[in-house]
Amino acid sequence: MQIQQHRFVLSNGHGCALQYVMLHLLGYDLSMDDLKAFRQLGSKTPGHPEAGHTPGIELTTGPLGQGISSAVGLAIAEAHMAATFNRPGFELFDNYTYVILGDGCLQEGVASEAMSLAGHLQLGKLIALYDDNHIQIDGDTELGFTEDVCKRMESYGWHTLVVSDGDSTNPIAIAQAVEAAKKVTDKPTLIKVRTTIGFGSAKAGQEKVHGSPLGAADLAHAKKTLGLNPDETFQVPQSVRDLFAKITARGVAAEEAWNTLFKQYQQAHPELAAELARRQKGELPAGLKERLPKYTPADAPVATRKLSENLLNAVAEHLPELMGGSADLTGSNLTRWKTATDFQPPATKLGDYAGRYLRFGVREHGMAAICNGLSAYGGFIPFCATFLVFAQYAAGATRLSSLSHHQVLYVMTHDSIGLGEDGPTHQPIETLAVLRATPNTLVFRPADGNEVSGAYWAALTASHTPSVFALSRQNVPHLEGSSADGVTRGGYVLSEAKDAQITLVGTGTELSFAVDAAKKLREQGIVARVVSLPCWQLFDAQPRAYQDEVFPAGIPVVSVEALGVFGWERYAHASVGLHGFGASGPAPQVYKQFGITVEGLVEKAQATLKYFAGKPVPNKLDRI
Amino acid sequence: MQIQQHRFVLSNGHGCALQYVMLHLLGYDLSMDDLKAFRQLGSKTPGHPEAGHTPGIELTTGPLGQGISSAVGLAIAEAHMAATFNRPGFELFDNYTYVILGDGCLQEGVASEAMSLAGHLQLGKLIALYDDNHIQIDGDTELGFTEDVCKRMESYGWHTLVVSDGDSTNPIAIAQAVEAAKKVTDKPTLIKVRTTIGFGSAKAGQEKVHGSPLGAADLAHAKKTLGLNPDETFQVPQSVRDLFAKITARGVAAEEAWNTLFKQYQQAHPELAAELARRQKGELPAGLKERLPKYTPADAPVATRKLSENLLNAVAEHLPELMGGSADLTGSNLTRWKTATDFQPPATKLGDYAGRYLRFGVREHGMAAICNGLSAYGGFIPFCATFLVFAQYAAGATRLSSLSHHQVLYVMTHDSIGLGEDGPTHQPIETLAVLRATPNTLVFRPADGNEVSGAYWAALTASHTPSVFALSRQNVPHLEGSSADGVTRGGYVLSEAKDAQITLVGTGTELSFAVDAAKKLREQGIVARVVSLPCWQLFDAQPRAYQDEVFPAGIPVVSVEALGVFGWERYAHASVGLHGFGASGPAPQVYKQFGITVEGLVEKAQATLKYFAGKPVPNKLDRI
Repeated sequence: MQIQQHRFVLSNGHGCALQYVMLHLLGYDLSMDDLKAFRQLGSKTPGHPEAGHTPGIELTTGPLGQGISSAVGLAIAEAHMAATFNRPGFELFDNYTYVILGDGCLQEGVASEAMSLAGHLQLGKLIALYDDNHIQIDGDTELGFTEDVCKRMESYGWHTLVVSDGDSTNPIAIAQAVEAAKKVTDKPTLIKVRTTIGFGSAKAGQEKVHGSPLGAADLAHAKKTLGLNPDETFQVPQSVRDLFAKITARGVAAEEAWNTLFKQYQQAHPELAAELARRQKGELPAGLKERLPKYTPADAPVATRKLSENLLNAVAEHLPELMGGSADLTGSNLTRWKTATDFQPPATKLGDYAGRYLRFGVREHGMAAICNGLSAYGGFIPFCATFLVFAQYAAGATRLSSLSHHQVLYVMTHDSIGLGEDGPTHQPIETLAVLRATPNTLVFRPADGNEVSGAYWAALTASHTPSVFALSRQNVPHLEGSSADGVTRGGYVLSEAKDAQITLVGTGTELSFAVDAAKKLREQGIVARVVSLPCWQLFDAQPRAYQDEVFPAGIPVVSVEALGVFGWERYAHASVGLHGFGASGPAPQVYKQFGITVEGLVEKAQATLKYFAGKPVPNKLDRI
Repeated sequence: MQIQQHRFVLSNGHGCALQYVMLHLLGYDLSMDDLKAFRQLGSKTPGHPEAGHTPGIELTTGPLGQGISSAVGLAIAEAHMAATFNRPGFELFDNYTYVILGDGCLQEGVASEAMSLAGHLQLGKLIALYDDNHIQIDGDTELGFTEDVCKRMESYGWHTLVVSDGDSTNPIAIAQAVEAAKKVTDKPTLIKVRTTIGFGSAKAGQEKVHGSPLGAADLAHAKKTLGLNPDETFQVPQSVRDLFAKITARGVAAEEAWNTLFKQYQQAHPELAAELARRQKGELPAGLKERLPKYTPADAPVATRKLSENLLNAVAEHLPELMGGSADLTGSNLTRWKTATDFQPPATKLGDYAGRYLRFGVREHGMAAICNGLSAYGGFIPFCATFLVFAQYAAGATRLSSLSHHQVLYVMTHDSIGLGEDGPTHQPIETLAVLRATPNTLVFRPADGNEVSGAYWAALTASHTPSVFALSRQNVPHLEGSSADGVTRGGYVLSEAKDAQITLVGTGTELSFAVDAAKKLREQGIVARVVSLPCWQLFDAQPRAYQDEVFPAGIPVVSVEALGVFGWERYAHASVGLHGFGASGPAPQVYKQFGITVEGLVEKAQATLKYFAGKPVPNKLDRI
């Protein structure tokens, strides 16, 4: 079992040399040679902290504002786990989340979003130390950051404290502030610590020390000022080693105590203990796959966002690690299952900390960063929701889901011009391209009920990869031949045809256009086969032999998707889609205006066959 | 001349029915039939306000937080124009910027960024009315938005006022608050107006009235409550017409007075008047093109970000409409020209309102939204800067630059794994793909000095399109055959070769790899030609005949770019680039690890020729 230790996040990740040194002193697997290899290729000490790459790093940071925002997720996770698993005499979950952040983090909107929500949620075990050094890269903060930070935090419902001399070699004032912060249990605390950047250096207090090395002379000067031997480099005084050895011993004892407590917990509460162990191991509950809804073409047409809601209603009760919510679009994203309880401070009477549904507010970026924190805590499969186009508001955090291998489910509805009247500000065009272009990201655009089930199953079993579900506002029919298993392979043949002359490939709401176009083409004596390609990334990972079955050599491919066509050249010889922004109007009229119709697809198929008449058809699957 | 009227921004754009009705009543070209066509295809009344589409709409809104953030840009524009052009007795620029915003806007991080900066900049003529109705889509704001909004605004340096009854049919309290706001000249003002959503309806105060129609009965009820005839629809009482006629007359008089004042200004200050007229017309200063730096291969290698700085130093003084800055990366983006003055409140002694360099702080999203506002004001070519990967923090606003045709220059440096040590959190992979996939966006990745000049020239002359410059941290040689004019065509032949067997195409820092690879291939008896493709969007707009010259039929194409390969299938038969995230280390080692080297390109070229031996080469330029 992983001990539920306190969490530490260095939100101003560019200061990671400090974090690496601390991890080294505390006995993590980080040697002096690792420290010497700082920012070198293949080292354990990259330019910014990377979770999963360096032992002891909780969260990947560097992009400013992400660390503090994900730390809010860590604090939510602790509160929820405590409410769920703690029992009288068994405080299994009782950790603080400590954060160091700087001026840059406080300027980023993502941090504003997450910190406002943290105040509302009364996360008393979140303690942030603000390195108030008055310096950022451009110079003094007076250039553009003159707000009253403590007052702002108080407006969010935070408790604030000030340490006026953070440079002092006697850190007692900071320690005392942390203890004072712990006494306030219903508010997160920000401790503003006034410091001098480059303390000890001759360039102390100047932006110069932010990014560039001090140089030998000033380095020696700084070491002298700080009571170190200027002639020694990469040396740790024995007194320091001894001090940290004591701290490490304390940690080891705490871990042993926790393990003992957990053994007793296993005796007293065997079912809870087993459930906790399962979640920490990342194993899905038995029989979950069987709970996924199945559909036949006889079932009534319905929007894929609604099919997602049906699925959540079928599985959420049986998947307690699933926790998340919507950026104030619950009624549109349809992400709240019938029996859900809100995660809210009990005092609000709106829910409790055992609740699993989060009311993120209109805070897409903070929402995604918080989900990264839930994932980093362990024992969760977080999800969040908004309109697909607003995934771009959250791109700073969704990118870190991919880079740091967080299994976050992004439920993104209103996934094309099919949302209609809200118009081009709300209609995604380029959004799928960026998600498909991001490494370690599964992008699903399911076409019907079985494909929605397949997409969720693929996402739930991809334990180190975020997934995006692009879901529709408008209804879709359940298609003959649609397959959940097919989705897990990324793409599959929806309807095969002997002696086919052309392959029509579609995703989501347009897959049925391909089915209907194939029928119309058949009336003209043209044999078309239909392929569903809901997830490019999974399809590209299939064996070539399978890919060849889906896209047989010698047959041209025409794609249809009601978003921008960018990227489709990878699979298709011709594409029906958008080449500009959308328009406001009833969906069917908008589709018609841009020629994204069955007729439009038929014409494109005819043009494609005409083009390749007597010409060889290049095999798009050949990757040189 | 365009009158410098007050500006109005409906930041909660989903309430645009109100705005359309007001524009109709105020005599804008918006008929009753236009109002009846609300949210219908092709109407002047789309689901969210679209600048340039509907007369009287200053800014496109709907994506929450954008309106208030761009309004900060409008207020900066007014302060700068006043400081630049006003003269004693000639207050040409003296307008207020009024904003209505809701809870959603205040929850969005982009608004937090922009409003914090607005407080620092002491923008006293920015007046925001906060529709405090306690309701958002999910329900009561108590679900997740319980911060003290006024206190937060005060922490930013804003002046705040409260109107406790905004439902009152007597709007005098609101008018009085606005007058009180005007008296505070060194702080923006937020007026919190307590309202009831759906006032008059039986569903008043409930989230139900947010998105769904009231229904006939409740509509009649509401009309009665508000003193209207429930049997009439799309009717305006004569008393209302008369009232608005008076307001319109006042506006007409104000416009005439301003035009008279400007005629006198033309007499008193002919040069200033001519300069103002030029800027308002969007004409570039005479002789600007000649000021763009030119380079030869004899010039020393230098980073393209530095070449951008050289260009700014050469032109900024002669291009007064150029205004902008960096998100606290001035020393890295190299965007501050030698003689620049900061745009700062004179009281700070750090600059003045005539200054053109903005210290945005670490606020990428707010920065981009503010630039949209500067563009919307007219008479500006705004620019902003950060690392390329952090363009994704700003995607919500950059998308609106494209949709609303704002000429914003995005100076995005550290544009690949070539930034080296900062590592994968800072190395863009998917970033160019999303920008290239966004309609009405010019993405430039210039390879050397002449290409940087060409990119800027193309961007400066694209008066209705945003441009992105992807610029390098590392040095590049000035290449034989590089051409500024070539860049304006999007792509061109850098080095032609008779009987060429293969085309090597590159962008930015990797173009020189293609040049060196062609030499190496020649040693092996393989004839390669080299193409530079700095801007896909411009290249795609060229006549097919020109495109055929650049990519002759029958010759395979291999691309090289140190970012993700996604999208390159559009032009290339094979690609050298990234298929995952980057790594932290010295740039040359990182390039080597991912095989993005001259040798790697040579091998890919050989493999490509081997693949196509005896096979026909598909023409990637054929678009079916």
